[in-house]
Amino acid sequence: MAGTKAAPPVSPLAPASGFPALPPVAGVRFAAAEAGVRYKGRLDVMLAEIAPGASIAGVFTKSATRSGPVLACEEKLAALHRGGPGDGGFAILVNSGNANAFTGNAGRVAVDATVAAVAGALGVPEGHVFTASTGVIGEPLPADRIVAAIGGLRDTLSVDAAERAARAIMTTDTFPKGAVVTVDLGGVPVTIMGFAKGSGMIAPDMATMLVYLFSDAAIAPGLLQAIVSRQSDRSFNAITVDGDTSTSDTLVMAATGQAAMPRIEAPDDPRAAAFEVALGDVMLDLAHQVVKDGEGATKFVEVRVTGAVSDAEARKVGFAIANSPLVKTAFAGEDPNWGRIVMAVGKSGAEADRDRLSIRFGDILVAEKGWVAPSYREADGAAYMKQADLVVGVDLGIGDGEATVWTCDLTHRYIEINADYRS
Amino acid sequence: MAGTKAAPPVSPLAPASGFPALPPVAGVRFAAAEAGVRYKGRLDVMLAEIAPGASIAGVFTKSATRSGPVLACEEKLAALHRGGPGDGGFAILVNSGNANAFTGNAGRVAVDATVAAVAGALGVPEGHVFTASTGVIGEPLPADRIVAAIGGLRDTLSVDAAERAARAIMTTDTFPKGAVVTVDLGGVPVTIMGFAKGSGMIAPDMATMLVYLFSDAAIAPGLLQAIVSRQSDRSFNAITVDGDTSTSDTLVMAATGQAAMPRIEAPDDPRAAAFEVALGDVMLDLAHQVVKDGEGATKFVEVRVTGAVSDAEARKVGFAIANSPLVKTAFAGEDPNWGRIVMAVGKSGAEADRDRLSIRFGDILVAEKGWVAPSYREADGAAYMKQADLVVGVDLGIGDGEATVWTCDLTHRYIEINADYRS
Repeated sequence: MAGTKAAPPVSPLAPASGFPALPPVAGVRFAAAEAGVRYKGRLDVMLAEIAPGASIAGVFTKSATRSGPVLACEEKLAALHRGGPGDGGFAILVNSGNANAFTGNAGRVAVDATVAAVAGALGVPEGHVFTASTGVIGEPLPADRIVAAIGGLRDTLSVDAAERAARAIMTTDTFPKGAVVTVDLGGVPVTIMGFAKGSGMIAPDMATMLVYLFSDAAIAPGLLQAIVSRQSDRSFNAITVDGDTSTSDTLVMAATGQAAMPRIEAPDDPRAAAFEVALGDVMLDLAHQVVKDGEGATKFVEVRVTGAVSDAEARKVGFAIANSPLVKTAFAGEDPNWGRIVMAVGKSGAEADRDRLSIRFGDILVAEKGWVAPSYREADGAAYMKQADLVVGVDLGIGDGEATVWTCDLTHRYIEINADYRS
Repeated sequence: MAGTKAAPPVSPLAPASGFPALPPVAGVRFAAAEAGVRYKGRLDVMLAEIAPGASIAGVFTKSATRSGPVLACEEKLAALHRGGPGDGGFAILVNSGNANAFTGNAGRVAVDATVAAVAGALGVPEGHVFTASTGVIGEPLPADRIVAAIGGLRDTLSVDAAERAARAIMTTDTFPKGAVVTVDLGGVPVTIMGFAKGSGMIAPDMATMLVYLFSDAAIAPGLLQAIVSRQSDRSFNAITVDGDTSTSDTLVMAATGQAAMPRIEAPDDPRAAAFEVALGDVMLDLAHQVVKDGEGATKFVEVRVTGAVSDAEARKVGFAIANSPLVKTAFAGEDPNWGRIVMAVGKSGAEADRDRLSIRFGDILVAEKGWVAPSYREADGAAYMKQADLVVGVDLGIGDGEATVWTCDLTHRYIEINADYRS
């Protein structure tokens, strides 16, 4: 099982511009190393050090079988939000190659060992160290290899190592995912940046992958948490690759407060809204990159549902379409098979009226009032499907509810990757 | 789009014994013909004639976008159950090649035209003619071609043509599906037989395909309906190929009452229980054949969930496993990747306790109490996975709820079939 592995081909949907230049965020340093957790010759562990006084927020998988690291992060974050940050800095330690999930009590022992090592090396409280593990489920985490790497990680911490950190947390990802914006908050320029991993086992409910976000903004922890949770629902909880939900997935955001600005305390502070818009952009950018690296993806598909009786019903229809194997294989085959969209609407469980339903591919009206539109020509649909970026519009015509979700197609490559992942 | 199509390779899971010899059922005759609905040179329409006095029961898709034929069948069955059978025989007309779904008002017009033609040809009331259509969604049904075939169908009705009828309703099926039992009801031998089609777009809630069942039993319609509904939940509503639900699917059962027995009127008649067991066997046999002809299937997988807080929760866990693309690709790869089973339990939404969960592959205990079992050897799991028939046992350890569902693996062939079905 150990040994090196040939790098897979990069997704055809990867950003043409490559990984963005992530600028330093005051109060945050990164390091990455090769710890040999599962494979040799690749970065597989990353450490982020965050200066004292930061506000921390998080979103975690709701899986009933979530991993030891997730359970520990939830406890620590809840304690922080109850008691305030207290003294000392923060740290995030992530390994790839092994998820430390379904490893029983040994899983928690491994978390505690790595947390203690990080806390000792950086001089931060153990309650301030957040870990995550991603990779194979059910095998014991070789915590000793990770612990052995921590001294070297500490010694190489740098404000410029975010890209290395982003690469270290990859599993079946074919490209590292980063995003950055700068936003003016009351005349002060503030940076928001982050990185993410994920390409399979991607679906809500939760932050469905590993996501780390950093900003020098000064913002109260409770307000930061509210904004992060809300924007997760619009981004990471609105994407799906295969409808499968990981046991490990984690989003952590640190706002260091080192920008020269008065701290944002109130939700109605106009700077809170500006911050939320900017953070939402970073999160959506990262979420889209995860879909574009969906295992085997060749199409990036936006599903816009309108006219439902509620937003929740629209979301139900959106995910019924976005998770349908028949819809996703039609996209893979560049087949404008709108009948499968009708099928997915029907099975969603949402209220729908066949005779008020309309369907569009991009700007092309395909079906309306329970049948194919008189203006629709199959050749137009087929030509549209050749694009890499597709927009499917579904209007249910019975209300004001709406939702947008994102998915990719289902190809041979997905089968190849997942019928041969473990051995 | 028209023209002949090369026959696909038969599923490796097809019954070795081939299609069973379906004996005549007193009061039922069949015919099949080539009407050229979509493809030439294949049987694509079947007619069943049922003598007056039969009890009819049915189960239909709950899809919000269900087809015109389904809506018409629901109305007719409800009227029959309200008002009694009245005079006249019954008929079932089914075509493949075109689903007559999402075809607006024209869909209902096409239903009415074929119903009128059958009623006229056989001299039965229009309210006694049940139709179904299966195939591509959203294209107008060429009702004229079907109507043109009805005279020939009538003239060739035969008690021995059930296999031809079973073949005529196939779409992407690679083998026709039939089953038969004989049961002793109070000293009278009674036949129950039927056939089904379905291999993709298969999932509950409903009879997720086309299923026709016939018996010479004498049984009251309300009791027959109750038994059929209950056994559907244990068979056709307990299988999944891809989690996708058709707009068209239909189960119709006719009990002609021509066996020399007093009619079963009461649920507590011991003959009702014997009939239900026998009918349940036929239905489960057909349901399993549908899974074994699942598009691209190479493995037949039984998922047995026990120890849930309720049967409904057990079913939720069973379908989360049976529909998971990651679990199904692991089966395809013969990979004993029990971590993906853990993942699926976690995402199911059912109550679960990681540290009480146990997992078995056949008789092999794989995981217990939140971790891999001490006795488990990966080589044993890998050897087990090479079988074509797999049993996955999941015990949640927190209650008495249980459910069994059936599925198949997810292979390259599924992608091939579905990325290239329409054109």
